[in-house]
Amino acid sequence: MTAVPEALDWLRLYRSENVGPATFFRLIERFDTAAKALDALPDLAGRCGRKISVYPKDAAEKELAALQKIGAELLLADDPRFPEALRALEVAPLLTIVGDPGLLTRPSVALVGGRDASLNGRKIAHGMASDLGAAGHVIVSGLARGIDTAAHQGGLATGTVAVLAGGVDHIYPPENAKLHAAIIEKGCVLSEMPPGFVPQAQHFPRRNRIIAGLAQGVVVIEAKLKSGSLITARFALEQGRELFAVPGSPLDPRSAGCNALIKQGAMLAESAEDVVSTLGLLPGLMQSPRTQRVSSPVEKAENLSNAQKSVLALLDVSALTVDEILRECQLSPSTLSLVLLELELAGRLERHPDMSVSLRV
Amino acid sequence: MTAVPEALDWLRLYRSENVGPATFFRLIERFDTAAKALDALPDLAGRCGRKISVYPKDAAEKELAALQKIGAELLLADDPRFPEALRALEVAPLLTIVGDPGLLTRPSVALVGGRDASLNGRKIAHGMASDLGAAGHVIVSGLARGIDTAAHQGGLATGTVAVLAGGVDHIYPPENAKLHAAIIEKGCVLSEMPPGFVPQAQHFPRRNRIIAGLAQGVVVIEAKLKSGSLITARFALEQGRELFAVPGSPLDPRSAGCNALIKQGAMLAESAEDVVSTLGLLPGLMQSPRTQRVSSPVEKAENLSNAQKSVLALLDVSALTVDEILRECQLSPSTLSLVLLELELAGRLERHPDMSVSLRV
Repeated sequence: MTAVPEALDWLRLYRSENVGPATFFRLIERFDTAAKALDALPDLAGRCGRKISVYPKDAAEKELAALQKIGAELLLADDPRFPEALRALEVAPLLTIVGDPGLLTRPSVALVGGRDASLNGRKIAHGMASDLGAAGHVIVSGLARGIDTAAHQGGLATGTVAVLAGGVDHIYPPENAKLHAAIIEKGCVLSEMPPGFVPQAQHFPRRNRIIAGLAQGVVVIEAKLKSGSLITARFALEQGRELFAVPGSPLDPRSAGCNALIKQGAMLAESAEDVVSTLGLLPGLMQSPRTQRVSSPVEKAENLSNAQKSVLALLDVSALTVDEILRECQLSPSTLSLVLLELELAGRLERHPDMSVSLRV
Repeated sequence: MTAVPEALDWLRLYRSENVGPATFFRLIERFDTAAKALDALPDLAGRCGRKISVYPKDAAEKELAALQKIGAELLLADDPRFPEALRALEVAPLLTIVGDPGLLTRPSVALVGGRDASLNGRKIAHGMASDLGAAGHVIVSGLARGIDTAAHQGGLATGTVAVLAGGVDHIYPPENAKLHAAIIEKGCVLSEMPPGFVPQAQHFPRRNRIIAGLAQGVVVIEAKLKSGSLITARFALEQGRELFAVPGSPLDPRSAGCNALIKQGAMLAESAEDVVSTLGLLPGLMQSPRTQRVSSPVEKAENLSNAQKSVLALLDVSALTVDEILRECQLSPSTLSLVLLELELAGRLERHPDMSVSLRV
């Protein structure tokens, strides 16, 4: 169990304004502990002329109390029970979890797909989840209607993880209340959001990134061309996961997204066997595809105003890699890293999952 | 129009016992004309201690008369109207054709698939054929029930070619009599077999090889795992053609062959656009993927008995490439070539489309 003061600091830092997962890890890297980063936060943001809203201590205390009340706990990235893959990818620094955290360190496959799935699509999802479970894989999905529901049901007996966009106690759709309870009983439900949190549209891609990050492989079943499952698929590729799609007739728009993924290089999967045979061939699945990051002591901050200006002038609404900016900005890697952190805390910068950044307008 | 004596000689040579397309072209290469090859045939076969049945002159004359009667003609590989792709691949040295031979030199796509196709499968085949036709492609298929029928119907207005395993006048299935007549009227029907010929199981793969050879791309729609369409697909790959498959649900066994092809590397096609966009990107489609062949004057034949024995000893029921045999046999390329020809005429050798050979037992 994590010490409460540390948990409080992590919660406060992560829930502060403009602190995303990547920024969180940069801050820990630079200031060593969440407590020190919290102290430095207002000053860092202030260097770009912005006041930042730091998450209040009493709000964090209330969150911890609420977690305890519903039988949930907070897993920090430095907890050995925290999923190694999520830590390596810096997808999230903390998770709220209710149920058995032991599932998070077992091999797992994510099954995702459309909410308006056909009976056949749900049959495929259920059967594939059940067979993958029998082969030793935990089934990860998002508790949504349709494919997600069928996947959890198929994986219930052998182990399934539901990743929610809202709080772990925010049950949606309502008809999945029994399934939600059963998953807590036999598997686990997790979220990076506080209990009671009601998600909005922008929170689903973040959740999808956790789903893809948790699993060695992602299988997409019945996804339309504009389905949220395709966002999960994109994260899977960015995170170096194996991507599978179950094909369907060109006459069925519910399969158009899956067929498009296969055209773009996803593996065609008809059965659990197709998934297992591929995943079984890949060693080192849990390794991060990220490039090694630059780590150095904090530099003196006298000239940062000019540095900020020069970096801002380079940034664009289109994403640039940090390497590209480094080549142009005439700053040292560690100075650039600090400037990007400041700009992000000031809400001027957006970080993307592939480690590129863009100007926030 | 081909001169009758030449046509007679070609027909007789090609219809003689154990003379397949590859042997035919080797004989012409070695003896320059079909007439001279016919003269040499009994002697060549005799060197392996076999009598060969040479196709009688009156049978060939009857065939030519029968062709004339049904309004068909014989296209020899040295006719400029003969499809360049079939000539380059040595798929067939002659074709019996009724209808417009002009279609044979236009860009074309083969659409093949199951006989017991679903309504949806036939709808896809019809629509794809019609769209590919509008994009300038002739539709090649085999006049079978199901997908073939729908493909011909979809391509009828813009140009379609039916390749039959039997004679050009052997209409099967009987309910396609009207379609057969319409294709003759607006497109063309062809076969390498004589009029009236009723095909048996072994003649369908030969026909499928012509289908794949005629087209720049082959699209497989609704094929079971053991479908004859997969033979056409294999020929397509061996002949360097683009291979496409239309996917379907894993729950539908009629799509299992197509999904398997995609897993093995065939391109997933949902529409004519997918096919056109790929074919449009490939220059030099009509070129043969074969390696250059060894050509040399006829050698003296004194020691061929020993040569035959040594080659026979090397041959196996599993296929070997001619290069592999050449490395082992201590014969010159031209001697080996002659020995293989003799063994083939003697019915001891089988040639495969990928230019490998095996022992016939």
